Amino acid sequence: MSAYEVTLPVRFGQVDYAGIMFYPRFFENFHTVFEDMFSSRLGVRYMALLRERRLGFPMVRMETDFRKPFRFGDPMRLRLSCERIGRASITFRYRAVHGPETEPSAEALGTVVIINLDTFAKVPIPPDILAVLQDLHD
Amino acid sequence: MSAYEVTLPVRFGQVDYAGIMFYPRFFENFHTVFEDMFSSRLGVRYMALLRERRLGFPMVRMETDFRKPFRFGDPMRLRLSCERIGRASITFRYRAVHGPETEPSAEALGTVVIINLDTFAKVPIPPDILAVLQDLHD
Amino acid sequence: MSAYEVTLPVRFGQVDYAGIMFYPRFFENFHTVFEDMFSSRLGVRYMALLRERRLGFPMVRMETDFRKPFRFGDPMRLRLSCERIGRASITFRYRAVHGPETEPSAEALGTVVIINLDTFAKVPIPPDILAVLQDLHD
Amino acid sequence: MSAYEVTLPVRFGQVDYAGIMFYPRFFENFHTVFEDMFSSRLGVRYMALLRERRLGFPMVRMETDFRKPFRFGDPMRLRLSCERIGRASITFRYRAVHGPETEPSAEALGTVVIINLDTFAKVPIPPDILAVLQDLHD
Repeated sequence: MSAYEVTLPVRFGQVDYAGIMFYPRFFENFHTVFEDMFSSRLGVRYMALLRERRLGFPMVRMETDFRKPFRFGDPMRLRLSCERIGRASITFRYRAVHGPETEPSAEALGTVVIINLDTFAKVPIPPDILAVLQDLHD
Repeated sequence: MSAYEVTLPVRFGQVDYAGIMFYPRFFENFHTVFEDMFSSRLGVRYMALLRERRLGFPMVRMETDFRKPFRFGDPMRLRLSCERIGRASITFRYRAVHGPETEPSAEALGTVVIINLDTFAKVPIPPDILAVLQDLHD
Repeated sequence: MSAYEVTLPVRFGQVDYAGIMFYPRFFENFHTVFEDMFSSRLGVRYMALLRERRLGFPMVRMETDFRKPFRFGDPMRLRLSCERIGRASITFRYRAVHGPETEPSAEALGTVVIINLDTFAKVPIPPDILAVLQDLHD
Repeated sequence: MSAYEVTLPVRFGQVDYAGIMFYPRFFENFHTVFEDMFSSRLGVRYMALLRERRLGFPMVRMETDFRKPFRFGDPMRLRLSCERIGRASITFRYRAVHGPETEPSAEALGTVVIINLDTFAKVPIPPDILAVLQDLHD
């Protein structure tokens, strides 16, 4: 398959007094592409994974480079791909690209673990999710 | 001097469906301790640096480890210290500690550059800010 | 013309511990449809009105009814129409409709004034904006 | 007793490009004083009401007047009082006052219903909460 991509325009409530995207807002967008990927590729809503299958995906480590600012209205193309698959952990690559460009203006590596939401204990990646992740690369 | 510290309780609007702090919200708190440090140590409001002195501090790189979740009401002690001072860049260490504990439950290294808000060009750290940063360590 | 409409799916970061949209998040969505209307109908980005034409649109009064909760993933159709046009004030109607339904699950009347961002003094509605507003009804 | 009050400084992430508090952020602060009131007056964390007692307090109607802007760093005194107590509904008054002033710069009347979080059915106000509400006035 390929990386999963959505485009989100930068909103007024996401820019700061300097007119550029306030850096904590990037992470909200990173989570949005993560959510949408499950609906699109797994065919299951992210919330159903939590509510019905009692799975959680807490972030344990994230490295982010911010190379070029985003301004109000800029279309942010968000690409999500899978960098590394462990037994109970997954490292994703997030790229935020200015609409027509090819090089990411912001880029992150984020590692989540999979847990049971009732016990907060780690669980192995379920097979249907594993299959989706194995296809989530450039 | 020493690291700068504020305590912020985790708010309902910061926790997610799983009842733990949604990870993008940590960065909002990291920015809060950063803002407050200027008021407290420099005696100048963060916004005055932007509006009157036309300085900006965009984040260029951030590495974050999330070790233990925060739940609603947990008092988050946020400690800010200065890790490295460059000519036009500064690396801060952010530690988020559960109230009575000593080890951080989340920890980040964030590097900002100092720019002129009109030109977006890098500028050297002004002397009064430099003096504050040199004292901002454990 | 007609009311302006966009559809936004409810995001994970917008729902609370109870699994329903946290009520302050509705207002972020209301602002989004307001922003988009200017790009779409006036052909001018909302931010350009602020930055270049020095116009601001602070909210002075808002009445909101929340009739039915929105859950993660629910598609929220947001309709914006103009209810009343004054000399320097405008009252908008915001309707948030569950995807396929016709009756709004949340509805607001919001009145903004138009100000000059340098003086914060009220200014009359500029003719090009007035023309757009006069067409913004069901 | 009296109204419940907390003071929150306006944060950088709450102001917009115009340098004033983005109006959706007021509602986050209104929820904060609501949360804190339960901890302080009832001696029970808001989240414990949801998680352990399975109570929810969805907002059903809110009227807000925004009279004077708040800027970064302004101390916002938030006062919460109880305006009307029904069988399963409560109307609160929220006042946001600039630090040393007496007249509110923003003011809201918000009506919540009390529901069971498992059934989403209305429930009568529990006696311990009723006692707190009866004391929550100026």
